[in-house]
Amino acid sequence: MILVNGLATDQVLACDRGLLYGDGVFRTLVMRDGRVNSWKRHYAKLDSDCSALEISCPDEEFFLRDFSVISQAEREGVLRITVTRGESARGYAIRENNPVTRIVSLSGLPHFGNSMLADGVHARWCKIRLGLQPRLAGIKHLNRLENVLARLEWKDISIFEGLICDERGYVIEGVSSNIVIRQGNAFYTPDLSKCGVAGVQRERLMEYVHPGIKVLDILPDMLMDADEVMICNSVIGLLQVRELEGRTWVKGEATQELRRLLEGEDEI
Amino acid sequence: MILVNGLATDQVLACDRGLLYGDGVFRTLVMRDGRVNSWKRHYAKLDSDCSALEISCPDEEFFLRDFSVISQAEREGVLRITVTRGESARGYAIRENNPVTRIVSLSGLPHFGNSMLADGVHARWCKIRLGLQPRLAGIKHLNRLENVLARLEWKDISIFEGLICDERGYVIEGVSSNIVIRQGNAFYTPDLSKCGVAGVQRERLMEYVHPGIKVLDILPDMLMDADEVMICNSVIGLLQVRELEGRTWVKGEATQELRRLLEGEDEI
Repeated sequence: MILVNGLATDQVLACDRGLLYGDGVFRTLVMRDGRVNSWKRHYAKLDSDCSALEISCPDEEFFLRDFSVISQAEREGVLRITVTRGESARGYAIRENNPVTRIVSLSGLPHFGNSMLADGVHARWCKIRLGLQPRLAGIKHLNRLENVLARLEWKDISIFEGLICDERGYVIEGVSSNIVIRQGNAFYTPDLSKCGVAGVQRERLMEYVHPGIKVLDILPDMLMDADEVMICNSVIGLLQVRELEGRTWVKGEATQELRRLLEGEDEI
Repeated sequence: MILVNGLATDQVLACDRGLLYGDGVFRTLVMRDGRVNSWKRHYAKLDSDCSALEISCPDEEFFLRDFSVISQAEREGVLRITVTRGESARGYAIRENNPVTRIVSLSGLPHFGNSMLADGVHARWCKIRLGLQPRLAGIKHLNRLENVLARLEWKDISIFEGLICDERGYVIEGVSSNIVIRQGNAFYTPDLSKCGVAGVQRERLMEYVHPGIKVLDILPDMLMDADEVMICNSVIGLLQVRELEGRTWVKGEATQELRRLLEGEDEI
């Protein structure tokens, strides 16, 4: 089911700036039993991402109304929210007070199975390097060709995720996940101030884990030497990377613990 | 008028990867008297941009058929061709042999007036710096948020174009144009191997001008010291920059000559 500005349709205008220029932002979130996990946090991030691009974020109530309509048909699934700068005449210039486009769609929840949750996943290194763009870093915007090209690098279905470095060689993220590593009692996550997407589950972990997760420039060697490597996003929650280009890890207790933290109710 | 995969409609599927991820490429070209300028060159560039993203470019005949349909309704205007990787399930992964989406739209030709052609335009420096991404450099893809943010930097309608540097400080392009400068008898254009869009009119100039246009890393100071600064794209052709942040230039003869070169028939 797809709602575009509240109306059930699977179409958008061909002159929407989301399509013309990737001029918009999005979020991916999970609905279970008609409820959206961590909604307040997702909305805050959507609003802040919109602001960073000078897009006027629709009021929360519009999304809540969309969720209510959708949940009358389906009680669970993966929601994608997209907000674009709206339709446009030709050219980059933007009209004052251009109405934005709001798209909310629901698709089926992927089923990972208990073994993936318990046993973790295989990952690989992607060859593409992320460019540095502080003005867009952290934002979940619609300019995702780097992630698309990274995902094109493999077809082996036993590989669950590809890890990507930036042009300086620092580890930044998975194609569709954030990365947390454990070294002894310390947790680290890549600095996303120059590129990458700062996800909501990473943000939750940074709040929940005591005494915190340190933001750091992480080289691939440091990740390979880590005691545990974890990837997270709103759909998978948290998974352990158990194999990465020949390096294997034993089942990690921290992963289990952090996953339980994310599975708990979000206080926000 | 808009044709999506040959059908007259102003809508595309909301699950098109062009909208979801900016996963596609585009071209802007001019139709006059039902004929498309430099079509062979544009198609070659479209095909090469598609290849760079591993998108299968539709055969030329599909576009020619679209042009024929459009030109029965309107004889002149600005055509925008968009090719996306097509519709998609959720997630970055791509299905084998996914049919691409082909969008051709026509909008009115802007009227620049003789004074702009003769007297040139005012430009400004944009604050945003382009990130470096060799994998996407030169390609006219749909990930254009940097250009959108650059265009957001000014509202003064007397400013026609904004010039953008990359993160290293080199001049790269205008928001929607390429740059050529003249220093004495020598012509230079920025190196676009790390970022920027390599346009068809720049390519034509590089072929037409003898003994050639040198591709160079150009710092803003060098541009400010140039004898002539020109911007080009398929819609404006070639215009002289006559004022840039207080620096003014007298009317340049090279601009007139290069514009005539572009107005001539494209041999290709």
